[in-house]
Amino acid sequence: MRAEREPQTADMPVGKAPALTRQLAEFIARTRWDDIPPAVRHEAKRALVNYFAVALAGCADPAVEKATAVYGRFRSAEEASLIGRPERTDILNAAALNAMSANVYDFDDTHLPTIIHPTAPVAAALFALAQSAPLSGEQLLLAFVLGVEVECRLGNAVSPGHYQRGWHITSTCGVFGAAAGAARAMLLDAQHIAWAFGNASAQASGLVETLGSMSKSISVGNAARNGLLSALLAAEGFSGPGQPLEGERGFLRVTAERPDFSAISEGLGRDWALLSNTYKPYPCGVVLNPVIEACLDLARGAQLSLADIERIELVGHPLLRERTDRPGIRSGRESQVSAQHAVAVALAKGKAGLAEFSDASVMDPALRAFGSRVVFIDDPRFPVESAQVIVTLRSGGTVSRKVDAARGSLEAPLADAELEAKLRELTAYGGSGVAAQPLIDALWALDSAGDAAAPMRLARACGA
Amino acid sequence: MRAEREPQTADMPVGKAPALTRQLAEFIARTRWDDIPPAVRHEAKRALVNYFAVALAGCADPAVEKATAVYGRFRSAEEASLIGRPERTDILNAAALNAMSANVYDFDDTHLPTIIHPTAPVAAALFALAQSAPLSGEQLLLAFVLGVEVECRLGNAVSPGHYQRGWHITSTCGVFGAAAGAARAMLLDAQHIAWAFGNASAQASGLVETLGSMSKSISVGNAARNGLLSALLAAEGFSGPGQPLEGERGFLRVTAERPDFSAISEGLGRDWALLSNTYKPYPCGVVLNPVIEACLDLARGAQLSLADIERIELVGHPLLRERTDRPGIRSGRESQVSAQHAVAVALAKGKAGLAEFSDASVMDPALRAFGSRVVFIDDPRFPVESAQVIVTLRSGGTVSRKVDAARGSLEAPLADAELEAKLRELTAYGGSGVAAQPLIDALWALDSAGDAAAPMRLARACGA
Repeated sequence: MRAEREPQTADMPVGKAPALTRQLAEFIARTRWDDIPPAVRHEAKRALVNYFAVALAGCADPAVEKATAVYGRFRSAEEASLIGRPERTDILNAAALNAMSANVYDFDDTHLPTIIHPTAPVAAALFALAQSAPLSGEQLLLAFVLGVEVECRLGNAVSPGHYQRGWHITSTCGVFGAAAGAARAMLLDAQHIAWAFGNASAQASGLVETLGSMSKSISVGNAARNGLLSALLAAEGFSGPGQPLEGERGFLRVTAERPDFSAISEGLGRDWALLSNTYKPYPCGVVLNPVIEACLDLARGAQLSLADIERIELVGHPLLRERTDRPGIRSGRESQVSAQHAVAVALAKGKAGLAEFSDASVMDPALRAFGSRVVFIDDPRFPVESAQVIVTLRSGGTVSRKVDAARGSLEAPLADAELEAKLRELTAYGGSGVAAQPLIDALWALDSAGDAAAPMRLARACGA
Repeated sequence: MRAEREPQTADMPVGKAPALTRQLAEFIARTRWDDIPPAVRHEAKRALVNYFAVALAGCADPAVEKATAVYGRFRSAEEASLIGRPERTDILNAAALNAMSANVYDFDDTHLPTIIHPTAPVAAALFALAQSAPLSGEQLLLAFVLGVEVECRLGNAVSPGHYQRGWHITSTCGVFGAAAGAARAMLLDAQHIAWAFGNASAQASGLVETLGSMSKSISVGNAARNGLLSALLAAEGFSGPGQPLEGERGFLRVTAERPDFSAISEGLGRDWALLSNTYKPYPCGVVLNPVIEACLDLARGAQLSLADIERIELVGHPLLRERTDRPGIRSGRESQVSAQHAVAVALAKGKAGLAEFSDASVMDPALRAFGSRVVFIDDPRFPVESAQVIVTLRSGGTVSRKVDAARGSLEAPLADAELEAKLRELTAYGGSGVAAQPLIDALWALDSAGDAAAPMRLARACGA
């Protein structure tokens, strides 16, 4: 997905490391709304429609409930709102809790080259900021575009080793995106933005091991909260090291074996990460999309019952196996990254919505028993947005479906109307009572809004 | 410093990983005050005397001032106090800010096998907790001993690769220590303690690159704050993964090349980390102690002036060079880990207190110019607590001092009376107006105190 280039790796002598922190900070400080191409501006709004959709679904999840209760004990103000919830809180807590809601089902957007969920950390920080300080829609959108750009460029630089090693890349890179976005929205100069990066570097955390547990939401929330905090501290003159990103013991070298420095500078201001952003039709790890689509198609066409199936082979990019080979799962949350569950439920129910990836769905004995029949076949020639599902029947025959570009991939993106439908459906699922249409209208009109916080008011649940 | 043993490394098949999270959680849940040997109990109190001493010095540092201002905007209550400061705040902010004060000058204690500063994250979390819930001195001390044990055992398991790679081990392991201590003080059962570890694993962060900048204090503060938060979340049923420590993508494997699992289980409940804890006579990286002592001795005995010196060779363990070869520094904070500055100032002034490692001291042109004359000679046969300083004079002669066990090492520990003197001296340096003697008395009597928060009230500054 990346352009061909000569990578500048960390093997280069330290003294020759490019001044990436300074370069990024200056880029953030100098870029204007006029510099953002129309397609990127529109993609930013699409990302936000998807963000509110998924947050309105996740806002009543038990992890969010419990975090809201504990964080709520430590709220200093009632200046900011929670998407789909009635509580009000301070901007740091709001940033954390809204990012959690948006990401808790892993139903949020995906920057394909890195598998980062880019919007949750950045948008949650910026909308919280907008509720405590005057910020126009255009200012918020510009800060959002730049925050996502920083987050994804850092992700590109540390991929693929970073996630493979066990870093939850949405959390670890998200804190820099939130810091960059917040610093831009606060109109900090390049020096203070660099300090915000330094303050964020001290807080980058999150482990893949926590996926499937509530703990994951902490690091995603922290990415938003601590990114915002990093900018607030920098604004106060709380200073950071000179090279928190590229330094010998900086973020890039510590969390990746061979960071690709050129991924940060090359095409900066010309190639935009948001144009590699995608939105999920199913509430699962994005690498499962083609598998689910193939299984839904098989369920419709071939009228299969699980009992008829001897074995299912999943042919795909090795990432498919690495991220989703999870048999014997015990929670809805784990099921979102379990190919075994996804295959079984899509074939058995012919659906793949949030209900199919719930705790109740996972407890179905027929689905559980099916997992052992799923076999992974790595084929690096498959792009991650494609997969082939080969079903061997007990009767001896086989049926198969190959999906070249799953719905929701860059090649087959969800249309604006599909994103609106997703927001309507997930708002109903979350049960907050929020009215979807005014929120949708406000998001499409955000670039001309005088007050960027307007969508937050529309997304707040009434009653308690 | 560790016993001989057959290390169980991460190369073992994943399925065979020992259940370390469960083992540690059960250890924390079941250990009683009666299980703690008298020498460990006393060492815990010595660690706390040193903790209040260094926090009373650091409480007025600009990093703490600025963090107090920003964090203060987000305080939900005025239930907890700040050491040496007049403000009151909530327990999460108090945990963060007091840990920052204690560590900001790197003058806090050192667990020698890992170079962790163990007390700041754990004590700051526990004293904050004590200000919001009934906790006896004995309960706090037990939780403190156990928190330090967890922190240092994790540190042993990931050393030395973890710090070498660039992880600020006090921060990354401190969050687990604070979580363990807080969970014990809250009387959580083993399952909930394991969840606290999972919640902490999502928040372990901190980079060596930030040393010498204000950003470092964020991760140290977060270790205390987020460890406490991890336990509060676990108490609410916010659950974590099964193996946040030993799992394939868990803390140990992600942050160390070859984690030594046996360092966590071996001798658990028999060998205590606090007995490897040391207290600094000088406000510098502990590896500088023997160098400074040798230089002070040379300054006294040989009547050297910097102008007389052609070259200085520092012979020591490679860690001495790795952690302190920092010429051309520009701040007092950087000077604390700069052998170049330490050598110059100790020789020129015959002193090595906080004033000698201040911003003003670093600006002295004579000291700055001297750095290029310092040469490191690695000799792995030298233990870290020893060093030899060889001075070649312009006149052609040489003088030399070898220190086998610097003051403050395990072999030559600071006496209780020296720790008291340190507290008195640093209280005066910090200028808070806190009365030292009542605080000293309260700390030595902490095990019989009904209210563990008593020292916090004595350490609070009045005015404002």
